[in-house]
Amino acid sequence: MRTSIATVCLSGTLEEKMHACARAGFDGIEIFEQDLLVSPQSPAQIRALAAELGLSLDLYQPFRDFEGVDEQQLADNLYRAEAKFMLMRELGMDLMLLCSNVATATLGDDGTAAAQLRLLGDLAARYGIRIAYEALAWGRFVNDFEHAWRIVELADHPNIGTCLDSFHILSRGWDPAGIEKIPAEKIFFVQLADAPQLSMDILSWSRHYRVFPGEGAWALDQFLGHLVRGGYAGPVSLEIFNDVFRQADEVRTAVDAMRSLIWLAERTSVHLQETDGPQARYPMELATLPQVPEPTGFNFAEVKAEDTGQLQTLLGQLGFTFQGRHRTKAVQLWTQGRARIIINEQQARNQEPAIAALGFDVADPVRAASRAVQLKAEPVPRQSQADEEVLQGVYAPDTTEVFFCQGTGDGTAAWTREFARPQDSSAAGTAGNTGLDLVTQVDHVNLAQPWQHFDESVLFYESTLALAPSPSTEVPSPVGLVRSQVMRTHDGAVRLALNIAPLVMEKPGPSSESAYPQHIAFACTDLVALARRAVAAGLEFLQIPANYYADLQARFRLDPALLATLQELNLLYDRDEHGEFLHFYTATVGSVFFEVVERRGGYNGYGAPNAPVRLAAQYLLAQRSRDGSAKIAGYARNR
Amino acid sequence: MRTSIATVCLSGTLEEKMHACARAGFDGIEIFEQDLLVSPQSPAQIRALAAELGLSLDLYQPFRDFEGVDEQQLADNLYRAEAKFMLMRELGMDLMLLCSNVATATLGDDGTAAAQLRLLGDLAARYGIRIAYEALAWGRFVNDFEHAWRIVELADHPNIGTCLDSFHILSRGWDPAGIEKIPAEKIFFVQLADAPQLSMDILSWSRHYRVFPGEGAWALDQFLGHLVRGGYAGPVSLEIFNDVFRQADEVRTAVDAMRSLIWLAERTSVHLQETDGPQARYPMELATLPQVPEPTGFNFAEVKAEDTGQLQTLLGQLGFTFQGRHRTKAVQLWTQGRARIIINEQQARNQEPAIAALGFDVADPVRAASRAVQLKAEPVPRQSQADEEVLQGVYAPDTTEVFFCQGTGDGTAAWTREFARPQDSSAAGTAGNTGLDLVTQVDHVNLAQPWQHFDESVLFYESTLALAPSPSTEVPSPVGLVRSQVMRTHDGAVRLALNIAPLVMEKPGPSSESAYPQHIAFACTDLVALARRAVAAGLEFLQIPANYYADLQARFRLDPALLATLQELNLLYDRDEHGEFLHFYTATVGSVFFEVVERRGGYNGYGAPNAPVRLAAQYLLAQRSRDGSAKIAGYARNR
Repeated sequence: MRTSIATVCLSGTLEEKMHACARAGFDGIEIFEQDLLVSPQSPAQIRALAAELGLSLDLYQPFRDFEGVDEQQLADNLYRAEAKFMLMRELGMDLMLLCSNVATATLGDDGTAAAQLRLLGDLAARYGIRIAYEALAWGRFVNDFEHAWRIVELADHPNIGTCLDSFHILSRGWDPAGIEKIPAEKIFFVQLADAPQLSMDILSWSRHYRVFPGEGAWALDQFLGHLVRGGYAGPVSLEIFNDVFRQADEVRTAVDAMRSLIWLAERTSVHLQETDGPQARYPMELATLPQVPEPTGFNFAEVKAEDTGQLQTLLGQLGFTFQGRHRTKAVQLWTQGRARIIINEQQARNQEPAIAALGFDVADPVRAASRAVQLKAEPVPRQSQADEEVLQGVYAPDTTEVFFCQGTGDGTAAWTREFARPQDSSAAGTAGNTGLDLVTQVDHVNLAQPWQHFDESVLFYESTLALAPSPSTEVPSPVGLVRSQVMRTHDGAVRLALNIAPLVMEKPGPSSESAYPQHIAFACTDLVALARRAVAAGLEFLQIPANYYADLQARFRLDPALLATLQELNLLYDRDEHGEFLHFYTATVGSVFFEVVERRGGYNGYGAPNAPVRLAAQYLLAQRSRDGSAKIAGYARNR
Repeated sequence: MRTSIATVCLSGTLEEKMHACARAGFDGIEIFEQDLLVSPQSPAQIRALAAELGLSLDLYQPFRDFEGVDEQQLADNLYRAEAKFMLMRELGMDLMLLCSNVATATLGDDGTAAAQLRLLGDLAARYGIRIAYEALAWGRFVNDFEHAWRIVELADHPNIGTCLDSFHILSRGWDPAGIEKIPAEKIFFVQLADAPQLSMDILSWSRHYRVFPGEGAWALDQFLGHLVRGGYAGPVSLEIFNDVFRQADEVRTAVDAMRSLIWLAERTSVHLQETDGPQARYPMELATLPQVPEPTGFNFAEVKAEDTGQLQTLLGQLGFTFQGRHRTKAVQLWTQGRARIIINEQQARNQEPAIAALGFDVADPVRAASRAVQLKAEPVPRQSQADEEVLQGVYAPDTTEVFFCQGTGDGTAAWTREFARPQDSSAAGTAGNTGLDLVTQVDHVNLAQPWQHFDESVLFYESTLALAPSPSTEVPSPVGLVRSQVMRTHDGAVRLALNIAPLVMEKPGPSSESAYPQHIAFACTDLVALARRAVAAGLEFLQIPANYYADLQARFRLDPALLATLQELNLLYDRDEHGEFLHFYTATVGSVFFEVVERRGGYNGYGAPNAPVRLAAQYLLAQRSRDGSAKIAGYARNR
């Protein structure tokens, strides 16, 4: 599959965009006219740069408002087209995108449009240029790809073909199956865009909210499947108008884009095998990746810190056991049930405690890591001694290190042998652990995401770890709405909540003075018992206001004894049609806190109605810990 | 008119919100339940704080999903209601909002709903509480205010009335005239929200995009007019769910909110006088402000800087005349035609040149300033000597100082007498001025706005200066889309372009290294002559790429001689059905640059198609002026 991308997807100058596309591994690019117009580089310089970078210049776009016009306008339009053909000759380009007329068309009959396209084809032929005619979803007379194709068919000119853009087809709800009826050689170009399912006017949706394949709601594997089955073998290009990508680093965005196409090629290949059988062959080659099943659990979570004292105390109070230090590294291991927490003191100078890495149990770590790297994830350089287990890892978009660990039937991990138990097991840090493990495993991990890389994060976890996105929610906090997106396995063994904090401008709060807090939630079998033990061990709980309990009672008519226990222990409660959820939060250390949860029955959520209570309590704590100066600071600045 | 506001409009804790509402001058507040639940303050403490701040607690909200349910659910709902009534008693509150059932209603007939409301009314009466029943636009069975009123009428209970919310009525396109048919004493509460005209699902529109009256697209003066004419005299409250307000400083937002109500009261009063005649009287009193006509021009623009050398050179090269220094202050005056630029060196230590103040010609400066202050604008403290003209000014939301100056028929300004002409008129700074004033006046001024105060800015300029918003546009730049909103007088004598820069996160650019550049555009009668004179004087023009001119030719088929002149002088060109527009930009000094424009015929725009060319050129310049370090910095950080 030849890959291409429109320069309008990226930020920066045309030169910067081209360098980014080359670095991400694209075969070619579409030159978006605006990017050329504002560039001081001459067409010849752009042509030379493309050659130097190994990028083909696939499509010049857009040419607008040509067909369906009166004679005078037609003459003007042909004049305008010829000027662009001369420019394309300087660029060494031979394919131009023509969008269906939005503004100047007055004649709606196909015969006129086809006749005018034929004239354009004649002119283009003189310059060795071909025209790809595309139906915009909001075209004046032509807004349906099958209609555009009928006009191309009617024009019947070797230099006139069609361009198919998934946005213009799927946003209108047209059935893409019709693509297979168009002769492949008349499909001159293909552009793919995904989009979230928004109910808004199509033009705004298109201009601001497009995302890369896999980051939206559309089945683009099926869409591309129709093209492949129909025999299309030309470039598959991305044309994504997105307000956020326009502001983000262009190299990152280009890598994200490339990942989306690699992933889509695989998905399309799988889709075609499922529908057409494994023997089917097509002109387009779809490279596939090493297949990996879902992870089966969290292997470990790593917190990095210079000063680990408070963390050790917290874990001890929660009932964790100190399993010792690593043989060669300044790293501690704490466990309870199958939950393993690594405290990493290496290269942590001046670092407040923060979640640095997550390990996932997978069937085949080498294969999983190889897949991730083929998906353009950056490998984590990890030094290890000769006799140590080598952990394979990559960086997630928020720089969290993601490790692929060997899953085992009994939930053990071989690497834990590298940790030496302390001589004196009553050493500091084991306080609170009476020997009974109430925590069974990590229930979920909540990571803060920079808002401008949210879509990238979703695709990253879906493509590399086979996690699926749940419907997202929004939680009010005193400093703004927090968007929460859970990525999980089907069985819930791995649940990752990605929180996008509001971009705080003016309100001081938890997200402004320190990094936005993240947390690790542990599953336990008896929350009340664990909480009582933690109280006895001196754990600092996040304090829950009395008003919350009054409302809880009004909503759920709880047994008064249970309500009293909840309030006494600062426990939170939720209930749905499947079961009950009890949980509590610890105080925050650095940018990390812990949660302990008990799921009763089939409760499958995360206590979302309680999240505002937590955020408000953390806001108040952060406020109190400040010296009263209301600094203007933002979450983003702390990343 | 009694003013009120829902606590959900503001950021912060409940206490912070209440303090902000009191400071902004609201009479009362609606307690949004969530704000109370997450607060550590007891109901009694909240009640005491409200009393201390002089705020009435007008409405407890929301109570949801009560009516149209089966017997079991009804019992649960009454239990839940009674718990809230007890809470309200602690708060000393007597009015609760009931939203039409969204989730649990199974019985859609009005009789059932009315009967169940009657039961609720009986229960409420025992606590001295009244219920205001409101139709949500997305209610299961009840989503129309007239339907909600029919049920209230059917319930026929003294403790059951209705609540009217402009959002739920206008978003569905219901005709608000029906409000006048509802007996005023049965309208227990009124909530107002404005909204931009978006075509999206109503729930998302409501939850994220509401704005204060005057900041959206709706005729809320007519809406409130129906209430006033119908005899309503209760509180007029604001309930605005807005993602940006949730993040912004609550004191600012509260002031913005109060301004919107003051302005709305005036507009409603004017509207009623126009429709019902000046003699009409109503139970609700609508305070009015001193009326002011549109400004008739820019009186001056002030640039502040520590080092004024480059500014002086630029103005001289543009043909401005140095009119001398102020008698007592470190301030210079430069003029050309009716354009006056003040260069202020006072209190400018370490300050790069930036636009600091704008003076507007108005009919009655004292009246205009009084109006602005009554609209909660903060006055600028201005020191002046005994014999000097006292300028009345207020701060705009972006901290630009806005002065109300005495307009004159001949375009002169009395305060210029305070500037002493230099002894030697050939002194530095007059270079380039050959004595012929080609500039006639300030054409427009372009101010960068912090994105989180954009709505506030629009209302500020509309309410205090009688400027009207034009349709907004979006301009692509290498670091993201720039939104541009022109505020202007009907005759175009005053035009102010508010630019909202992208919140740059990762791309270094003009907006990250220094403050986002702003500019002053001068109108002239002969741009080519002025440009040639400026070239001769050594002016540094913003360089326009050759690719731009090739495209210009393709689009407009310009006379080759004109095209050559444009390209030679770095002039930009635009044309519409009314006329032509020629303009150029200077290099940027600090965060200021200048533009000179020539309007030919009836051209009424600002050369928007050329703005991307300007932004890209400025981006490249800023890039070159940096030392190559790609810092992660943002526009917001520089405010």
